[in-house]
Amino acid sequence: MKLRPDYLIVAMERLKATYRILAPADEVRARTEAVLLEQTIETPVSVGNRYPFVREQMMGSVLELTEHPRGGFRAVLSLPVVTASIDPAQFLNVLFGNSSLHDNVELEDFELPARIASMLPGPRFGIAGMRARLGVTGRPLTCSALKPVGLTTEELAGLCAGLAAGGIDVIKDDHYLADHPFSPFEERVRACLDAVAEVYARTGHRTLYVPNLSGTPDQVFRQAEHAQQQGAEAVMIAPMLLGMPLLHELVRSRLEVPLLAHPSFAGNLRIRPATLLGRLFRLFGADAVIFANYGGRFAYPKEVCGEIAEALRAPWRDLAPAFPVPAGGMTVERAPELVEYFGLDTMLLIGGSLLEATDDLSDRTRAFVESVSRAAAAFGAAP
Amino acid sequence: MKLRPDYLIVAMERLKATYRILAPADEVRARTEAVLLEQTIETPVSVGNRYPFVREQMMGSVLELTEHPRGGFRAVLSLPVVTASIDPAQFLNVLFGNSSLHDNVELEDFELPARIASMLPGPRFGIAGMRARLGVTGRPLTCSALKPVGLTTEELAGLCAGLAAGGIDVIKDDHYLADHPFSPFEERVRACLDAVAEVYARTGHRTLYVPNLSGTPDQVFRQAEHAQQQGAEAVMIAPMLLGMPLLHELVRSRLEVPLLAHPSFAGNLRIRPATLLGRLFRLFGADAVIFANYGGRFAYPKEVCGEIAEALRAPWRDLAPAFPVPAGGMTVERAPELVEYFGLDTMLLIGGSLLEATDDLSDRTRAFVESVSRAAAAFGAAP
Repeated sequence: MKLRPDYLIVAMERLKATYRILAPADEVRARTEAVLLEQTIETPVSVGNRYPFVREQMMGSVLELTEHPRGGFRAVLSLPVVTASIDPAQFLNVLFGNSSLHDNVELEDFELPARIASMLPGPRFGIAGMRARLGVTGRPLTCSALKPVGLTTEELAGLCAGLAAGGIDVIKDDHYLADHPFSPFEERVRACLDAVAEVYARTGHRTLYVPNLSGTPDQVFRQAEHAQQQGAEAVMIAPMLLGMPLLHELVRSRLEVPLLAHPSFAGNLRIRPATLLGRLFRLFGADAVIFANYGGRFAYPKEVCGEIAEALRAPWRDLAPAFPVPAGGMTVERAPELVEYFGLDTMLLIGGSLLEATDDLSDRTRAFVESVSRAAAAFGAAP
Repeated sequence: MKLRPDYLIVAMERLKATYRILAPADEVRARTEAVLLEQTIETPVSVGNRYPFVREQMMGSVLELTEHPRGGFRAVLSLPVVTASIDPAQFLNVLFGNSSLHDNVELEDFELPARIASMLPGPRFGIAGMRARLGVTGRPLTCSALKPVGLTTEELAGLCAGLAAGGIDVIKDDHYLADHPFSPFEERVRACLDAVAEVYARTGHRTLYVPNLSGTPDQVFRQAEHAQQQGAEAVMIAPMLLGMPLLHELVRSRLEVPLLAHPSFAGNLRIRPATLLGRLFRLFGADAVIFANYGGRFAYPKEVCGEIAEALRAPWRDLAPAFPVPAGGMTVERAPELVEYFGLDTMLLIGGSLLEATDDLSDRTRAFVESVSRAAAAFGAAP
């Protein structure tokens, strides 16, 4: 048997991507062909046609063009895997690079070719791995945040101790916590790890403290190394602020602990939220993804939040499921409703509503934790 | 005189940011306060008020709230520099992190405090530095792109030679060119540098070949190092694909040559294009910024393109002006119009329209270069 060059084998696989295109019916075919061109050869077709390899392998095609249930049209494009599988940045580039600049094109979804799944193998820990670290099964994880920015290290560590003593599972830095003069990164990590360790020694309750990493790639890599050396068992980044390729490199080469992803700067990239925060964040390796929940400070519709959660947990090749972390103006009182809507494999994040407790922070935290446990028991018992 | 802690001095400076807020008149004040909270303490006000430093320094304020000429309202917020000046990612986070998730808030603009200008000093070369490298004054620079993706190294080097022989100033990789099996990065860089060097030796005409860097931070840093070692005199990245903090680190610690920024994945982040592509890309250090021009493949209005160009070149503290690079479906025939609209301190990028020449690529390139020179002379002579 004669061996073919690698790229010819690869070229047989295709990246299928679905877009929503807002255009009048008599223009949508041309609009779709333009998107195809933009995401592939980005030159006039006559230029592509001159080169046999380009003509046969790189042009892609329009597989389907139908009406979209939410208005406009649904276009399924077949794109060359050979360009998308070169590196994580090129994957995003081929999926939605220049077309993101068109105000009438949205990325809806994509099918994951094997070649890209081997480049981007997804979460290393996921739901099961994080549960194993905490020894928690059968109920959602509970999570809170250290804020507001401006507190001293001592004040933050005090909040940590109070939340941990109340039985919370996970405490993450607010995404505004960075290497500030009033609470330097290394000092904060040490103090917060000590605070949760002290509670563990005293009560046997285990809490993960999750520092936020921020800055340029070198700063983030140094923070990741330092946090792990100090014993941090998870870290957080905001992938859209720092770059999705950095997320990939962090989880593949720099981290031996789970990673929480924060949605800051994810804005409206004209990518369906479940595709960006659910599928792409999971694919790039996030073990848990925070998103703005319905009914809080943000205006995400309930069904969009459900779609994000499902995208994070749904069976998908060999990718481990990741925790959905609904957040943003949640209250202790809403815990039962959220457990019922998102189910047990969820991490419920309540920040301000715990911190504004005028009574004891630990008591308020305990009320949250117990409410989640009760709701989980009821959920488990439901028909 | 008693010295105050650093943060108290810093705290006297404020980051003034302007947003466009789409809300009914009777809700806009509450909506604006919510944006302020989101971009500062991100907890209920009662929580912030407990801590004197937070209350006095971190809460920010609403400076103005007026009707916006394009509809909705214009809100000017005062935000704490102390959080925004910690690292380049936090600057973006404080400017438009979580608020980018609100579908009724757009970032319009910002004023640059001294503290942030010293963290982000902008282009290292800018227009003057790039002109000096090429020895070109008094006219726009001419630029073309190597594409489509899928060509072999030999084919790309052949295009390079043809474009350089036609007198082009700058040849950039297409943003889809990465480390592909049919044209590996290192092989391509060598071959393209050789191609332009050969034309220089033969004709005395100097062309900059600009390789595209793509991948994770480590991959990009390795490519940057390799390209410079080989003699590349400029490089290109797509900052929104790779992460804005990476752009900063690249220009501050890894590059001794100018950087071109590509707009791929810049989508509609609900940031005014002139603010994102003009002010932010320049502030983070791009020496030239490619953007989708009016009247081409993209639907950017003419005045938006003019605003982007102005934002890149306008006097702004000590920041060097950067080249605007209008692109995307431009044609040789439009060169005079574009010179007239964008002026002399512009880099005109024409890709497909040169490459589709069925006659000689060098002839077609020469026609473009001469057309720009003639238009520049007319522009210079204009009253």
